[in-house]
Amino acid sequence: MQPIRIGILGVGTVGGGTVKLLQTNAAEIARRLGREVVITRAASRNLERAQRVCGSDIMLSTEVADVVTSADVDVVVELIGGTTVAKDAVVAAISNGKHVVTANKKLLAEHGNEIFALAEQNNVMVMFEAAVAGGIPIIKALREGLAANQIESIAGIINGTSNFILTEMREHGSAFADVLKQAQELGYAEADPTFDIEGHDAAHKLSIMSALAFGTPLNFHHCYLEGISRLESQDIRYAEELGYRIKLLGITRKTAAGIELRVHPTLIPEVRLLANVNGVMNAVQVQADMVGETLYYGPGAGAAPTASAVVADIIDTGRLMGANAGNRVPYLAFQPTQVQDLPVLPMSEITSSYYLRVSAQDEPGVLGEVANILAARGVSIEALIQKGVVCHETAEIVILTHSTQEKHITAAIAEIEALPRTFAPVTMIRMESLHG
Amino acid sequence: MQPIRIGILGVGTVGGGTVKLLQTNAAEIARRLGREVVITRAASRNLERAQRVCGSDIMLSTEVADVVTSADVDVVVELIGGTTVAKDAVVAAISNGKHVVTANKKLLAEHGNEIFALAEQNNVMVMFEAAVAGGIPIIKALREGLAANQIESIAGIINGTSNFILTEMREHGSAFADVLKQAQELGYAEADPTFDIEGHDAAHKLSIMSALAFGTPLNFHHCYLEGISRLESQDIRYAEELGYRIKLLGITRKTAAGIELRVHPTLIPEVRLLANVNGVMNAVQVQADMVGETLYYGPGAGAAPTASAVVADIIDTGRLMGANAGNRVPYLAFQPTQVQDLPVLPMSEITSSYYLRVSAQDEPGVLGEVANILAARGVSIEALIQKGVVCHETAEIVILTHSTQEKHITAAIAEIEALPRTFAPVTMIRMESLHG
Repeated sequence: MQPIRIGILGVGTVGGGTVKLLQTNAAEIARRLGREVVITRAASRNLERAQRVCGSDIMLSTEVADVVTSADVDVVVELIGGTTVAKDAVVAAISNGKHVVTANKKLLAEHGNEIFALAEQNNVMVMFEAAVAGGIPIIKALREGLAANQIESIAGIINGTSNFILTEMREHGSAFADVLKQAQELGYAEADPTFDIEGHDAAHKLSIMSALAFGTPLNFHHCYLEGISRLESQDIRYAEELGYRIKLLGITRKTAAGIELRVHPTLIPEVRLLANVNGVMNAVQVQADMVGETLYYGPGAGAAPTASAVVADIIDTGRLMGANAGNRVPYLAFQPTQVQDLPVLPMSEITSSYYLRVSAQDEPGVLGEVANILAARGVSIEALIQKGVVCHETAEIVILTHSTQEKHITAAIAEIEALPRTFAPVTMIRMESLHG
Repeated sequence: MQPIRIGILGVGTVGGGTVKLLQTNAAEIARRLGREVVITRAASRNLERAQRVCGSDIMLSTEVADVVTSADVDVVVELIGGTTVAKDAVVAAISNGKHVVTANKKLLAEHGNEIFALAEQNNVMVMFEAAVAGGIPIIKALREGLAANQIESIAGIINGTSNFILTEMREHGSAFADVLKQAQELGYAEADPTFDIEGHDAAHKLSIMSALAFGTPLNFHHCYLEGISRLESQDIRYAEELGYRIKLLGITRKTAAGIELRVHPTLIPEVRLLANVNGVMNAVQVQADMVGETLYYGPGAGAAPTASAVVADIIDTGRLMGANAGNRVPYLAFQPTQVQDLPVLPMSEITSSYYLRVSAQDEPGVLGEVANILAARGVSIEALIQKGVVCHETAEIVILTHSTQEKHITAAIAEIEALPRTFAPVTMIRMESLHG
């Protein structure tokens, strides 16, 4: 059979990793696929670096157009990143009838609805395993492996930088700022770490998984975002005393009222596998009606793991290039005509359990006042520890609640902060049992 | 589009679960697949029970032939189990040009090479996600998700019964026989539990994964088997003191000399996710050259989880029914012409670390004698605890070795057992670091 001809856009970390993988494992891939995968063209801003990576058999250019319009390219692999050049390139590739493989979570989360509609018009595939959780084949699990299920919820550790920081904070009792600096020195965090530590990256990935799970359009712009930069080490310590660990989770859940879609630090019981996912590793737990709980773990970033996902998509695309649209898996797991726009719930309407830390004067009666406020809102308490005097005359009360709607907690916190003997703000962290 | 017409063989636990799933999630499945899945026929030895499960829209028969030869069946779903009736049924279905979905690990492990060859001749698909690790989409991960990698090794907890027993033994310090009785009362173990606890079931699943990973024929008959029935609770306890847990693992690894293929109790560090997979749950860890370490966790048995995998296969089959063979994933992940028969290594040639427990007279010098024997064989010691006197004049020495070939350990054990002041037998349990 004819080789599958690849055009690569962007020869940076992941692009270079993809070129290298296709060279290293060429024989093994051909043994599986029954045909060869050949990179015919590549575009890069930096031709010199591209030459070093690609050698002399690949036609190089600084122009995206030389790849996406080329007659000797079947599949365009977009590894530029971002939503400007990359978006134009993907649109041009699709319009030229090329299949697309991309690792670009931001592009798909923000413009996926438009891109998939255009791809459908042009009868081409757009594959994106590498866009979520790096080397873990979670897109395949959601689109195909769990296709017999009604998926109920997803909870994932899908940002390696944040998980590295939280792991270090817990293991060494360090402060956020110190660990961030260390992560930057190790190359695990960018000079401007906002995108990772404030949850944007996780929200991109989560909104892609949410659409695949529930058959909705991509809803990134409605995703709630809360990062880890304000997390204090004493909360990690108190959580641990109570048998919990704090992870930055992306959580999406289908309820009768709509979709929950949220990224925030979350207490989870230490016995759960997700609580034991450490360092830069990623993991995604999926709850579905028939299979129950499944979990997928692996490296969420890095040149070789991401290339593993990119090339798996190239292999799938190669297999189905000549087939009909009906032989392919739908872009967002559901047939385009069957995608249903369900409302994303505002945070006031989500259901969760909560960790609250209240600073108060170390006097009798305060605990009772706090408990009464929660009771009046119908919030029941699962556990409570009074930490005694932490400094001067201030005591800390740590409360774990049972599950309730967030608006009740928000209202209760306002009342607790208004008590004469408490000191605002009350620290609130959401909590998930992650069970059944 | 036309519905996909299913004929079910066997309406027992999994068969009933599959019927129920296809009813319950009919709408969700059609939203994904773009067509309906309809059960047209079913065969069962027990027509009365089948009628209760299937209702009146499905044509029932006691004869397999009524399903596998029927013109109104596109996909035969074999859920009979075993290798007699089921084998004849699958062969007949394939010979009649029907695609086959099966959950039958024993049939594939023992006769898969012949079945896949016949399927290729008849240009039909044979899908078997449910045959390994129940609801976990591990077959899809190995055949497709990791297709860009050279897979290096697999280690899996793939028998829920054994894992339940080991979990209970560890958590409650109970003896094997007591926990087995409890598992039987709970329905987690069969009246004759041999198949599960002696590793046969795990070996079936492991040999399927090994073939998919390394591109070899199915090698079940060369798989080494050692179950959990002779495991003693003090070894679980000593392992725990040293930071390890004991799991029944299926391990397969590709080395320069050949394939390791073995099922046995294994010490693994307690910090590994696999060590924290408890109760009846399953998990499979895969090491591959590009992606590194990935892990897949979920329920390994049960009507609904297994049906989830069966129906995922039906959906995949339905999608590709009209396509060419080149559009399909090869049966054993590699093109049939590319399957290479690599030797399965005898256990003397495998490489592992080891846990040894030596009973000896509580006298000075014995420890040195034991250490000298290991040193003479080139086996280095990672940890050693002397347990002092456990009964009468007998002390126990627990040793963890570094990695070595098994023949050196076997020889060393024979020499240790021959020492005048030790008491045979030496307990030996293999140990894996499961890292990188």
